[in-house]
Amino acid sequence: MTRRPPKALIAFQGERGAFSEEAARKLLGAGIDVLPCPRFEDVFHSLQDGEAAGAVIPIENTLAGSVHENYDHLQRFDFPIVAETNVRIVHNLMAPPGVPFSRIRRAYSHPVALNQCLDFFTRHPGIERVTYYDTAGSAKMLMEKGLNDCAAIASAVAAEIYGARILRRSIEDDRRNFTRFFLLRTPGYARKYPRQAPPNAQWKTSLVFSTRNIPGALFRCLSAFALRDLNLTKIESRPLRGKPWEYLFYLDFLGRVDTPTAQNAIGHLRELADVLKVLGCYPRG
Amino acid sequence: MTRRPPKALIAFQGERGAFSEEAARKLLGAGIDVLPCPRFEDVFHSLQDGEAAGAVIPIENTLAGSVHENYDHLQRFDFPIVAETNVRIVHNLMAPPGVPFSRIRRAYSHPVALNQCLDFFTRHPGIERVTYYDTAGSAKMLMEKGLNDCAAIASAVAAEIYGARILRRSIEDDRRNFTRFFLLRTPGYARKYPRQAPPNAQWKTSLVFSTRNIPGALFRCLSAFALRDLNLTKIESRPLRGKPWEYLFYLDFLGRVDTPTAQNAIGHLRELADVLKVLGCYPRG
Repeated sequence: MTRRPPKALIAFQGERGAFSEEAARKLLGAGIDVLPCPRFEDVFHSLQDGEAAGAVIPIENTLAGSVHENYDHLQRFDFPIVAETNVRIVHNLMAPPGVPFSRIRRAYSHPVALNQCLDFFTRHPGIERVTYYDTAGSAKMLMEKGLNDCAAIASAVAAEIYGARILRRSIEDDRRNFTRFFLLRTPGYARKYPRQAPPNAQWKTSLVFSTRNIPGALFRCLSAFALRDLNLTKIESRPLRGKPWEYLFYLDFLGRVDTPTAQNAIGHLRELADVLKVLGCYPRG
Repeated sequence: MTRRPPKALIAFQGERGAFSEEAARKLLGAGIDVLPCPRFEDVFHSLQDGEAAGAVIPIENTLAGSVHENYDHLQRFDFPIVAETNVRIVHNLMAPPGVPFSRIRRAYSHPVALNQCLDFFTRHPGIERVTYYDTAGSAKMLMEKGLNDCAAIASAVAAEIYGARILRRSIEDDRRNFTRFFLLRTPGYARKYPRQAPPNAQWKTSLVFSTRNIPGALFRCLSAFALRDLNLTKIESRPLRGKPWEYLFYLDFLGRVDTPTAQNAIGHLRELADVLKVLGCYPRG
């Protein structure tokens, strides 16, 4: 008999309908129950306290880069990455049902979202941009107040959750705006309910390590992978504040962590690195 | 006779008093004239159109990562990096002169800034957070409207520019919040007025390159530097969207681009990389 995991909460940062919720649905299905949290740290604490059974966090964006804060939490807490997914950030203009586009005078959203739709506002100078705390939160506020000359800019999931009607889809300037998300579990949950993957799935392993003084050091560290023909899909250095000449590296390679080749590469890297932590092994998204 | 550059505008993204203006002052002195621009692209266009004589752009932040958008602009436009600097992001609570801290009921700022001061708001539950388009812009608005029970959260430079009084300094949760900025010039300006550096200055060279399929490729590319004992201070991969298995790399190394060693390393890298562009050579900040 296959064990079926209990239905439980999935934590993410932001309001209901945030892009993290879209990622959570993509990873776990639309029927999940969610636990929105004010900040990333709260997401990790909710897993630690057993309030949530999983967490979905953004880790990098194609325009804005890696979310170092979440790499910091991944190192501090011990929650393995068990899956990844990429979500295209699509901004939609939405209003309460019955409000036509022609009546819209103001559009509410997070300033980052508003700034990613500047071409739309140039084409529609009659619509004023108004900043709000959160993209999804602006849709919620609009519906609660029943504003009939205002719109919100948010995800399609937010429109669905709050019952808003989408008036214009995909109004963002740049369509190459993707965010990569990780699904985290507690170590116990990950052991008890290993994630199923298609038999032909490629696997990725993510790790962080630090070295002192880069010149030859990084080159030697990468030899652990190059000499074993392991493909890297990410390498990024980050200076360690207050420790000149010491660097932290984020590295992803294609391979299952439990294969002899991967184990040998990691063993080799451990000889060369000061600190090394495997963050997880998961099917490529 | 030493040539003295003409006094001219320095462009940056944001309102007067943005952290980019703080960086510009750090790089060029407090007496500069500035050209605030709505978006990063406008900053580059203002240099291209000759409206500005220099530009200051953020390139990476210790919590939020590299600003890929500005790396994209650096590749598309041809403006050499001639200097770098690091600015600590300090958030200050400010109000019109005469307004005491005890009277503050609301604090305006950009949501990213508000989110970086959550401990402050937990300690002061009587102060409501209100989102605004821009950190410096919230200080400007406060002063223009003469609000006497409201504060703004912005840089010390914004307080100075708009005449606000700082009531609480450095209210950010995490003090390890630094942003690295580049100073860009037109190629003509950079040739005509080479930047002076102290005789013992270390130099950095920044470049971007792309490779197909990483496994051995990146390792071989890094050998161009490792075999010549050139220190890397940054290496970051970025997948090229729509081109699976092709990656773009950001690389900084310590050394002057015009030395034989650096020229040999770059020549060697050029043999291995598909595309290579040197973005600039500048004294270490």
